[in-house]
Amino acid sequence: MAEHLSQSELDYPFKLLEYFNGFRVSKVIFSACELGVFDLLLKAQEPISAQHVAQELSCSEDGMERLMDALVGIEILEVETKDGTALYSSSDVANLYLAKGSGKSLHDMIIYQSQTIYPLWNNIADAVREGKNQNEKTFGLPSEDIFKALYRSEEEMLKFMGLMNSSWVLDGHDIVTAFNLSGFQKIVDLGGCTGALAREMAKAWPSSSVTVLDLPQVVEAAQKHFPQEDDAVEFQSGDFFSDEIPPADLYVLARIIHDWPEEKCVTLLKKIHDSCRPGGGVLLVEALLFENRRGPVTAQIFSLNMLVQTEGRERPPSEYTRILEKTGFHNVQVCRTGKCYDTILATR
Amino acid sequence: MAEHLSQSELDYPFKLLEYFNGFRVSKVIFSACELGVFDLLLKAQEPISAQHVAQELSCSEDGMERLMDALVGIEILEVETKDGTALYSSSDVANLYLAKGSGKSLHDMIIYQSQTIYPLWNNIADAVREGKNQNEKTFGLPSEDIFKALYRSEEEMLKFMGLMNSSWVLDGHDIVTAFNLSGFQKIVDLGGCTGALAREMAKAWPSSSVTVLDLPQVVEAAQKHFPQEDDAVEFQSGDFFSDEIPPADLYVLARIIHDWPEEKCVTLLKKIHDSCRPGGGVLLVEALLFENRRGPVTAQIFSLNMLVQTEGRERPPSEYTRILEKTGFHNVQVCRTGKCYDTILATR
Repeated sequence: MAEHLSQSELDYPFKLLEYFNGFRVSKVIFSACELGVFDLLLKAQEPISAQHVAQELSCSEDGMERLMDALVGIEILEVETKDGTALYSSSDVANLYLAKGSGKSLHDMIIYQSQTIYPLWNNIADAVREGKNQNEKTFGLPSEDIFKALYRSEEEMLKFMGLMNSSWVLDGHDIVTAFNLSGFQKIVDLGGCTGALAREMAKAWPSSSVTVLDLPQVVEAAQKHFPQEDDAVEFQSGDFFSDEIPPADLYVLARIIHDWPEEKCVTLLKKIHDSCRPGGGVLLVEALLFENRRGPVTAQIFSLNMLVQTEGRERPPSEYTRILEKTGFHNVQVCRTGKCYDTILATR
Repeated sequence: MAEHLSQSELDYPFKLLEYFNGFRVSKVIFSACELGVFDLLLKAQEPISAQHVAQELSCSEDGMERLMDALVGIEILEVETKDGTALYSSSDVANLYLAKGSGKSLHDMIIYQSQTIYPLWNNIADAVREGKNQNEKTFGLPSEDIFKALYRSEEEMLKFMGLMNSSWVLDGHDIVTAFNLSGFQKIVDLGGCTGALAREMAKAWPSSSVTVLDLPQVVEAAQKHFPQEDDAVEFQSGDFFSDEIPPADLYVLARIIHDWPEEKCVTLLKKIHDSCRPGGGVLLVEALLFENRRGPVTAQIFSLNMLVQTEGRERPPSEYTRILEKTGFHNVQVCRTGKCYDTILATR
């Protein structure tokens, strides 16, 4: 609570200064990731000098030393001094989440945050002023068609897909097991991108068949750049706004509703309701706001992120319930996972 | 320590995700400051709605509501719901440090961080790669003459002066009282900018006379834009690199040495040594690194900031001692304040 923060902060605002430093701490990690520092330290298997890292990664020694020292300060790396030389090694957390190779790597999420989201947020004051996204000011892209902006080149599309793919690494399992979905035979993940969440779904509910539906260029890129041997999920091309939605028992909409203004969400959910088999339902995956507006911070900040980048927003459960009931769904159940993303299940 | 962080973070990297969000938390505060939210809330003297704030500040209601909710989440604002309307009020910390009017306002520091430092840090990976500042890539400015970049227009110079001015609000008193300076009769603050630190010095040591020496355009702007009634300090125009340095008993160099490579620091300190009266000395004010490279995080991150913006760096005490002794100074004493900036006193 604000009162609590105030008491300790009035004499000297340590926490406030930490907030001011936030952008620099983010970029310390992001730039080390972009330069390949964590990959090299994982490969090295032993403590190495900043000079060595700089040479391998074609960087200045001085700059690399400062970067690695800052990573030590925020406890991402460890340092020891041997015969006058500082030797750095990775923490387990960095090896698991920041190096590229690991199955839990957040590398692609970081690249997207650093190269696309960080510049967008430089214009957040204008987004608040104008009440609309800043794709035009930041990248010279039209603000109306957000996926035209997101997918403006194959490179950008792949970066965005990397973001989506690596973010399910963290929350995927909790999301797909939040409700018992064993009763739904055919599951379609609308806008399921690389299929990362769909695969978690197939693993958790092996008697269901899981299909990812996404735009043709996304499906093509998913199969080319994020291939999976003996894939447990199928892919189908289509635009869920303009094409027909295939019949299914459960539709998953993971971080889809938050992209759009309410009218578009209503149109989409009505269409889904019409295609849904009797006894079927819809599973929404979003970062849920508290009804009392006091948090979670992550969801509040994601909602501003939606403002600066899309036409959508994050919402509290009551809003989703209202929209779902308006479009014909019933029995709305909410599950907060305690992680970034939560789930809402509703039946036809 | 890294081990400690690892243990709790391996299952789910909450801290890491907080770091990833850091740039957005910074910008939430910065943009609210730029838009005038904290000033309006202080003036209002009672809880007001986001709609009201949006109207007063010519912002979108939707955007303002999201921004203020995020500020509630990070405990900068407080919210209560009355008759279905959310009413927001400021915390004491925001009134003291974020509103413009307060004597402790960090408003100018925030504007500089948001509009100059944030965009520079978008190029921090290149700074590490190249080992040099990114003024050219970020702003199209020459990377060699850093004060030509910092002072590229009167507006930019005033922003920078605002940053320096408001940062002494926090650490000024601790810095000037770290050592007993009562024995130094004439004190000259070289590059003393708006005179904020010099005034703290004059207040703490009233029997000393304190003069600020800075570039002519800085002195002119200081007197025009940061005037002080019955000013306890005098101003003198000059370039401490190319002009003569006036004789004095104590020279203050606050955040000057960290701007320059060692050769330039040595030249400057030798020149100061030559002008210094017998029994006199020099007081350095800088963010000191630990000798063991493990912190403080603030100083480590400032050192990267120096990389991306200047030709300098932050240093541990041993480095300052070496440079001071090399230029003829003795009795080097170090005082860590526990705040952002520390002090080093050496005598001629």
